Amino acid sequence: MKHYLFVIGAFALATSCLMHRAIAKEVILSSVEKNILVDDRTYTAGDFGVSAASADWSVTKTTLRGGMQNGVELVTIDNGEIEIEIIPTRGMNVMCVRGNGLTLGWDSPVKEIVHPRNVNLNYNSGLGWLDSFTEWMVRCGLEYSGHPGDDNGRLMTLHGRIAHIPASEVTIKVDKLSPHRISLTGVVNEVWFKGANFTLETTISTVPGSNTFRFDDTVTNNSSQDKEFQVLYHANFAKELLEKGSRMEGTISEVQPFNNYAAKSLDTHQIYDAPAKVWADEKVYQITPFADQDGFAHFMLHNQKAGKGVSFHFNIDALPYLTQWKNEDSRENGYVTGLEPGNTFPANRSHERKMGRLPKIGAGETISYQLEYSLLTNPKEVKLARAKIDQLNKGRSIKWGKKAER
Amino acid sequence: MKHYLFVIGAFALATSCLMHRAIAKEVILSSVEKNILVDDRTYTAGDFGVSAASADWSVTKTTLRGGMQNGVELVTIDNGEIEIEIIPTRGMNVMCVRGNGLTLGWDSPVKEIVHPRNVNLNYNSGLGWLDSFTEWMVRCGLEYSGHPGDDNGRLMTLHGRIAHIPASEVTIKVDKLSPHRISLTGVVNEVWFKGANFTLETTISTVPGSNTFRFDDTVTNNSSQDKEFQVLYHANFAKELLEKGSRMEGTISEVQPFNNYAAKSLDTHQIYDAPAKVWADEKVYQITPFADQDGFAHFMLHNQKAGKGVSFHFNIDALPYLTQWKNEDSRENGYVTGLEPGNTFPANRSHERKMGRLPKIGAGETISYQLEYSLLTNPKEVKLARAKIDQLNKGRSIKWGKKAER
Amino acid sequence: MKHYLFVIGAFALATSCLMHRAIAKEVILSSVEKNILVDDRTYTAGDFGVSAASADWSVTKTTLRGGMQNGVELVTIDNGEIEIEIIPTRGMNVMCVRGNGLTLGWDSPVKEIVHPRNVNLNYNSGLGWLDSFTEWMVRCGLEYSGHPGDDNGRLMTLHGRIAHIPASEVTIKVDKLSPHRISLTGVVNEVWFKGANFTLETTISTVPGSNTFRFDDTVTNNSSQDKEFQVLYHANFAKELLEKGSRMEGTISEVQPFNNYAAKSLDTHQIYDAPAKVWADEKVYQITPFADQDGFAHFMLHNQKAGKGVSFHFNIDALPYLTQWKNEDSRENGYVTGLEPGNTFPANRSHERKMGRLPKIGAGETISYQLEYSLLTNPKEVKLARAKIDQLNKGRSIKWGKKAER
Repeated sequence: MKHYLFVIGAFALATSCLMHRAIAKEVILSSVEKNILVDDRTYTAGDFGVSAASADWSVTKTTLRGGMQNGVELVTIDNGEIEIEIIPTRGMNVMCVRGNGLTLGWDSPVKEIVHPRNVNLNYNSGLGWLDSFTEWMVRCGLEYSGHPGDDNGRLMTLHGRIAHIPASEVTIKVDKLSPHRISLTGVVNEVWFKGANFTLETTISTVPGSNTFRFDDTVTNNSSQDKEFQVLYHANFAKELLEKGSRMEGTISEVQPFNNYAAKSLDTHQIYDAPAKVWADEKVYQITPFADQDGFAHFMLHNQKAGKGVSFHFNIDALPYLTQWKNEDSRENGYVTGLEPGNTFPANRSHERKMGRLPKIGAGETISYQLEYSLLTNPKEVKLARAKIDQLNKGRSIKWGKKAER
Repeated sequence: MKHYLFVIGAFALATSCLMHRAIAKEVILSSVEKNILVDDRTYTAGDFGVSAASADWSVTKTTLRGGMQNGVELVTIDNGEIEIEIIPTRGMNVMCVRGNGLTLGWDSPVKEIVHPRNVNLNYNSGLGWLDSFTEWMVRCGLEYSGHPGDDNGRLMTLHGRIAHIPASEVTIKVDKLSPHRISLTGVVNEVWFKGANFTLETTISTVPGSNTFRFDDTVTNNSSQDKEFQVLYHANFAKELLEKGSRMEGTISEVQPFNNYAAKSLDTHQIYDAPAKVWADEKVYQITPFADQDGFAHFMLHNQKAGKGVSFHFNIDALPYLTQWKNEDSRENGYVTGLEPGNTFPANRSHERKMGRLPKIGAGETISYQLEYSLLTNPKEVKLARAKIDQLNKGRSIKWGKKAER
Repeated sequence: MKHYLFVIGAFALATSCLMHRAIAKEVILSSVEKNILVDDRTYTAGDFGVSAASADWSVTKTTLRGGMQNGVELVTIDNGEIEIEIIPTRGMNVMCVRGNGLTLGWDSPVKEIVHPRNVNLNYNSGLGWLDSFTEWMVRCGLEYSGHPGDDNGRLMTLHGRIAHIPASEVTIKVDKLSPHRISLTGVVNEVWFKGANFTLETTISTVPGSNTFRFDDTVTNNSSQDKEFQVLYHANFAKELLEKGSRMEGTISEVQPFNNYAAKSLDTHQIYDAPAKVWADEKVYQITPFADQDGFAHFMLHNQKAGKGVSFHFNIDALPYLTQWKNEDSRENGYVTGLEPGNTFPANRSHERKMGRLPKIGAGETISYQLEYSLLTNPKEVKLARAKIDQLNKGRSIKWGKKAER
């Protein structure tokens, strides 16, 4: 069992502060334990007994009505600068983040936030997950993630179940002390008798008035047995960020093409094409990042003119891989790129096991994930983020792999 | 890509009027776009600012409670003469139409209007659709219809998905001008990432005080690629219309038995038997209709005494086939006949492709379907409908096919 | 077709009284027929126009909110002495029964009362039933029960569908005459077109102030054809009743180990081990009981000190078998034993048919099931129950079978 050391450094300290910080007041949005489900309502600083501080912020709970999204719970954190739309009903996925002319998200052909009760993951030989694929951030896992197919007589459905499990407990917390960080915590249980027994606890938080937000997630194995598990943060970008000439940068140690089509343009994997007119195949790259001195890998994506972008970092002790999914298909079919930190690559679980990439989590063990995203809304911010990555890459070179065998 | 010419003629003109007619007022019953879902309420002429005209009509929105139908949305158009029960939650299917001692519908062993969230189409090797089969009119399609089974590695589930997709937008419209036609429009999206991307827009409309109603449907392919697709209007008749000696008539060009059991009584396919005591197998006939000068095929079904019946016509450019399904099973098991206009026959998609009957819809293309039904509530009306079909059949003969090979 | 004779004797008379007894008033909690679904409310003796009699009782209807149990209907009968939690949404299963320091139920790793709409029975090669396995009493059946696998080309999903079908009609009835027995009746329909057409009508009843409650269930075949069917009352015990040294007793005629692991400790099948630390396999025994003069088999389970226990009896004309499932797994994984009266054993339907154990129910036939449970809350009650079973066993011996072949 690999032991996940607690990361030392600035971010780790921040996390530590998050864990022990004084909370002004806690608001329960939904709770299985207390049999609570709040309907439509907006909360502001006054509801938490704190001053609005640097920005006029709010948290709004909505229930969606009609069509395939009937009954879906939505929570919008508006920190005064950016809005973060979180979907408790879909495993605390994030629909989109937007502000200052920038959107984290994409235009999927699936337009609605489909209720999990409308989705059959077994459908279409295990591709049912695609019936509801529309969010900016979809977590994949936890018992398995990756491509559908057989693993020891079981059909692994595409990307696992966690995105289709409603959160059992959802709570807003606001820091008592300035700058009054706003947090939304959700508890999602993936469990079946004689099988998986995992708890994902996620806290999505942001400081009022900032362009930054982060995930502080933990996965706990409640079973008395060690278990294989997979985690993939399937974050999908398009909107203002993806176009011909858009560029992805990162602290990359190694790149391996996942499929033949990707192998053909390995050397330009960091640069994006325009959307196809009719149809284009996917290019997937398996990236092994390296970390800064605090244990974080750094990545970014920016548009052609480098005027808008997004940067993010994550702890590679728990998330040692990043999958780059280039889907330069038509706009109608969903032009998008996924930049997906994970603890494996997205092949079927049976393949990842064979490649020695399938981790285990011990009985009772808890593993922590930290991912922080910043919206870069002008050339200066893009340049700064790029400079940081360039600095880390100085003196290093990328190892180019051959097409992954399967 | 076959081009669907706009049909010239009286009906086409009516359709054209429908498209460009002045609307008194529009009432939204549910909308994903506007996050609206109206609960129980009845609307009358006054709500639309029009006079009640020739008949005292109403439109009622109900939400069903309890059992397998909990949460199902139902809309009842009562035009003063007939009631039409439409189910937005089930792809705008029609539960039944009734008035003047006549019912379009049947007594399925499935008694409830089962919510799609209670149905697993994959169930029972792809027969899950039968768990909720109870309506008068069930649309089948759109990515595929027909019998379950493999097509290129995918399980085609019986009759496709469209009947189990809730409408995203549902609107009542009433014509400003007399006779104040009442319309219910629903938008249903069948979509998955990297797959189907179809929109069905259906308008079910009737004139106050009439015995007639119609479907003005369109199917649009939102993808950037041409796509195979299937459409079948699975309309099921029993109640006052089906008994020993009931008779189906139509503008029939060719008849081919679908199965061996059907082949044995090919020459009497237009006449019905009494329900079986214990059990009877199905007889299915593949019918190729011909059209009148306006492009419409005409069919009817009447009871033994020819005192009650139903007549209908549909545009054969988009619906070139009709499947006759004779299920002369026991009353307990669901004595019923289906008269089903479609763009293919009901074998598995792989078979229809092989037979050259599987159509494609172009990228961005929209195809229109018009079906008009009339309740024939006395011998005179039955006789008139019969005379019209006889007139069209004059001088023609039916081509009898052999059992369909599969 | 085996004919099920009406059982003669005390219990039968009581049943007869139940059927013809005068009802003070009937309260509808939910009804498909009447389009009713009562939200949160508590009913007491006054609501039925009767005196509170020997105990201060109530019936409470709750709707659960949040997570996987959002929308689940729960009815709690508090008879003044014990509380019975019934789940209409899950086929009238019983979550738990508790009172006087004793609980019928267990600690499943599945903590929530999962809504059937969140369950895909096909999942995991037909093991989807385990995603929601948490109740004290789960009925299995009716078209099939038992282990998943193929039967004539159909996937039999684990333990069938009845636990995942919401009741269509739910009614509280209270006897007009003292002791004012409280009954909850539910109607659950398992039906698909061209397939199963069964109705389960269950009445769960208790006398105010008593430690006893019972099931008076009927299964009716609404089809015009005779049908195979399976019924298993999957009752699961742990909490205060299961520990190292707990003991099961019963009117046992024959015992056969179901699996190899069970065969190894056949002679101690009546005694339980402590929960495993990490993991333990299941031991399953196929028990053929014998009946008392009134047609009832008697069983009991008590803790190591014989200070707490449960006793129950059931009619063996309709329930000729009992499956003992010893799951001495870790507490985290769900330490539990099932004592499961049934009309077959829990192998796949195809195997039970081969073994001559798969019964049929005639067209239109109704079969009755009576099961009565008593909470034994002190050593005296345990001793009395044990004495009754010992008396019945006097002069008899158990036939020990070999491992069941499959």
